[in-house]
Amino acid sequence: MNGAESLITTLVNNGVTMCFTNPGTSEMHFVAALDEVEGMRCVLCLFEGVVTGAADGFARIAERPAATLLHLGPGLGNGLANVHNAKKGHVPMINVVGDHATYHLQYDAPLTSDIEGIARPVSHWVLTSSEPADIARDAAEAVRQAGHDQVATLVLPADVSWGDNPNGAAPAVAIPGPAPVPAERLQRAVTLLGNGKRTGILLGGRHISDTQTLLLSRIGRASGARVLTETFPARVRRGAGTGVLERLPYLAELAIDSLKDLEQLILVGADSPVSFFAYPDVASVIPPAGCDELLLAAPGEDIEQALEFLLEALDAVDVSPDTYPLQVPDLPSGALDANSVAQALAHYLPENAVVVDEGITSGLACFPLTANARPHDWLNQTGGAIGWGLPAAVGAALAAPERKVICLEGDGSAMYTVQALWTMAREQLDVTVVIFNNRKYSILELEFARTGARGGKPGPKAASSLDIGSPDMDFVAMARGMGVAASCATTAEEFNTQLEAALASGGPSLIDARVPPLQLG
Amino acid sequence: MNGAESLITTLVNNGVTMCFTNPGTSEMHFVAALDEVEGMRCVLCLFEGVVTGAADGFARIAERPAATLLHLGPGLGNGLANVHNAKKGHVPMINVVGDHATYHLQYDAPLTSDIEGIARPVSHWVLTSSEPADIARDAAEAVRQAGHDQVATLVLPADVSWGDNPNGAAPAVAIPGPAPVPAERLQRAVTLLGNGKRTGILLGGRHISDTQTLLLSRIGRASGARVLTETFPARVRRGAGTGVLERLPYLAELAIDSLKDLEQLILVGADSPVSFFAYPDVASVIPPAGCDELLLAAPGEDIEQALEFLLEALDAVDVSPDTYPLQVPDLPSGALDANSVAQALAHYLPENAVVVDEGITSGLACFPLTANARPHDWLNQTGGAIGWGLPAAVGAALAAPERKVICLEGDGSAMYTVQALWTMAREQLDVTVVIFNNRKYSILELEFARTGARGGKPGPKAASSLDIGSPDMDFVAMARGMGVAASCATTAEEFNTQLEAALASGGPSLIDARVPPLQLG
Repeated sequence: MNGAESLITTLVNNGVTMCFTNPGTSEMHFVAALDEVEGMRCVLCLFEGVVTGAADGFARIAERPAATLLHLGPGLGNGLANVHNAKKGHVPMINVVGDHATYHLQYDAPLTSDIEGIARPVSHWVLTSSEPADIARDAAEAVRQAGHDQVATLVLPADVSWGDNPNGAAPAVAIPGPAPVPAERLQRAVTLLGNGKRTGILLGGRHISDTQTLLLSRIGRASGARVLTETFPARVRRGAGTGVLERLPYLAELAIDSLKDLEQLILVGADSPVSFFAYPDVASVIPPAGCDELLLAAPGEDIEQALEFLLEALDAVDVSPDTYPLQVPDLPSGALDANSVAQALAHYLPENAVVVDEGITSGLACFPLTANARPHDWLNQTGGAIGWGLPAAVGAALAAPERKVICLEGDGSAMYTVQALWTMAREQLDVTVVIFNNRKYSILELEFARTGARGGKPGPKAASSLDIGSPDMDFVAMARGMGVAASCATTAEEFNTQLEAALASGGPSLIDARVPPLQLG
Repeated sequence: MNGAESLITTLVNNGVTMCFTNPGTSEMHFVAALDEVEGMRCVLCLFEGVVTGAADGFARIAERPAATLLHLGPGLGNGLANVHNAKKGHVPMINVVGDHATYHLQYDAPLTSDIEGIARPVSHWVLTSSEPADIARDAAEAVRQAGHDQVATLVLPADVSWGDNPNGAAPAVAIPGPAPVPAERLQRAVTLLGNGKRTGILLGGRHISDTQTLLLSRIGRASGARVLTETFPARVRRGAGTGVLERLPYLAELAIDSLKDLEQLILVGADSPVSFFAYPDVASVIPPAGCDELLLAAPGEDIEQALEFLLEALDAVDVSPDTYPLQVPDLPSGALDANSVAQALAHYLPENAVVVDEGITSGLACFPLTANARPHDWLNQTGGAIGWGLPAAVGAALAAPERKVICLEGDGSAMYTVQALWTMAREQLDVTVVIFNNRKYSILELEFARTGARGGKPGPKAASSLDIGSPDMDFVAMARGMGVAASCATTAEEFNTQLEAALASGGPSLIDARVPPLQLG
């Protein structure tokens, strides 16, 4: 077996059976090996940002990493933003980046670049395989690294791929479960919860499960602590029957105000909250000065076990959680805006749907309005690099073909990786895309004001830089051009009909929802 | 004046008056400053790959660098592939990458990343400005670095942008012209040309001018040396009246065969030619073993002066060049294929047009068939990272609004940065885009065979990975969705009519040319 076959076999032996690809010449032996090795599904994407975003979405729902196949340094560069998002969200990913043959690098051919250098800022682990005989060992190590919710990037020179590998493939590696939280920290948390101070518990991490929401809600009721989630956890279970938790606001000013009375903050799978960006007159740190913080559990540690421990230590195993009752709103009518979209979404949201949220400003209304909807998973943008939503929806739909995936997308953010629509059509994925087409970088109008630049009032050039309505973008045309059924909604009634039909279709659909921009102030 | 105003003023003082942008929150003070400082034109792009590719195309035609404005590490990552192409093509570029405020970095907010680490592999020079008082000096240094045909990347923290800069802006820096070629090398070249051995002269670099083609043709006639250009010089003047030079073939097998009889190779603004990729049974190095090589002039040195010296030393100032006569072919008829597209292009190619060539396999016929067309400039893909063509056409059209720009694009490569169409519409650029829509990664079918993977015959999964015709892409719909007039051609007659109309329109147009894939073997 050659190096590529050894690599793919090792990945399959370890349950890595999905590979998102955009290959080039240096990866042709890997591509050839897909037909020699059983068990690896391969999904072609037209751009590497789709490849890496799909791998992220897949891993969030499948709870196991996907592989990517990328073409040298520039291919990795094209996919870098969504690797960044995965890294920030503790989402595992195994990137295989083809390179020139080892002996060819010295000639500095046009596509030669420092692949490891490009990979390192967005990977937890980077290695270049140097011999076909090593590739199974190296692939197994990549699997092990990804097993710790990390991004592993393996550079595969063409001659390592095509060379004969006498060692065959590696078997399944043992991936330990999440590490238990040390007793010392557990005790410290119990002490904090019992000292009578105003306490918050902030939950985050790669997957806030139903169980976790319920446990934390019960802890809150038993201890009197406020119970919150991060603003953008990678995946969170929501809707009817889940535990009631506050979401920390995105805007630093609001988040700071929300936490201003806390004396103690216990972090569970979450980092200490900070402002997304810096602003001239806003603090970077969200909790108030003097707030005592405890990192109870890091993202890779056993969060459920820690929460269960606290519940028992509080002598509260009989305390029931505060849960969201099912409340499905009526359908909206009249003019279409972000709120009516949110209301229709809450009305139709199918049981166990996956919502991929890159709706930016227009998506803001969707989150609160779906709190009482049928139970579902919500995926958030974890790294702030836009162009994640459409690709992540591709990956989520492939991970759970039996579930409905709904992708909430800003018009601006959709255009970073709009090529994802083609893969949705090619694979006939059950994804409903809602484009909030407000013809603005609306978030940047808000942010411009917040930074106080030019007194918060854009001049003509700045205003033009935030305006993407000239020319107007027709997402129906673009979607159809890539094989996705699409329609345009300008009233709530139109949107209702189209959303119902899209969800019933079983295949990919796009709704170009013409909404007014967010009203500031 | 704040840091951003100091930066922009310094750039404008140095003739950097075009900025391609895709900003975010951390760049809002830069955006605001565009309205405070006179003289900087700012062109919005929907994706950073368009930003950097446009900067490349602009610099090639304007002969001066453009600036880019990018949003932190992920924004730079999105634009990385076209920065790579510029670097490989010796095309100057000044990247301004916004970052969090310096004091905010310690908090590892979601968009925090090692920007310098991402920038270094694709930049000749990287610097993070650390104080508002330094930004003018740092910007002047970026201009100086770009003045040497280099990629300069300046990281601009938000507080350096918004902070008060008591030092104001920097004046124009002196950029020295190309360095003269040392006499020793000139003499060595004269010796080689006089020793009776079989000699080739390979010309390359950022801009092969009319003058250079004529000088080299005369040197060839006077010395008996073969005169060639690199396969992919960044910009080359061609067509009627230019000097006749061979183009080194792309396929290593053909290039090796072409040079196999050479005993000496003189490199003028070109590196020693190597295979674009490595293949199991093909040499990496193109010239034959034992071929004596002389690097007469590096890309940044004074190529014209060196060629003039050789001509005089050969006592050949009276030798006239071999030039291409004007020969405009008749219009093609019948079925549409890559050859009929090329013939129609040669027929209609307007005087002084700029051709941006990312036609990949289908574009192959266009180059030889336009050798005798009206004089024009031809821009090549210099780094092999596809997704360059449409953005480069944006930049070229902005650099020369009075010239017709024709962009030859493969369907696969078009989809990497298809968002460029929107900027063409927004700025009403005089660009005619021809998409060779053959529904294949045709180059990869060829490369798969060349690598010998699986005996050169793709299995079903591999074949599927090279097939982008399922679903079929409708570029007319996509172009219209972004505001660009478009039409589809399935016969030569349709293509002729559409090309004539597109060139006459004065604005952006796209022709979706349905052509069969390259026939192999």
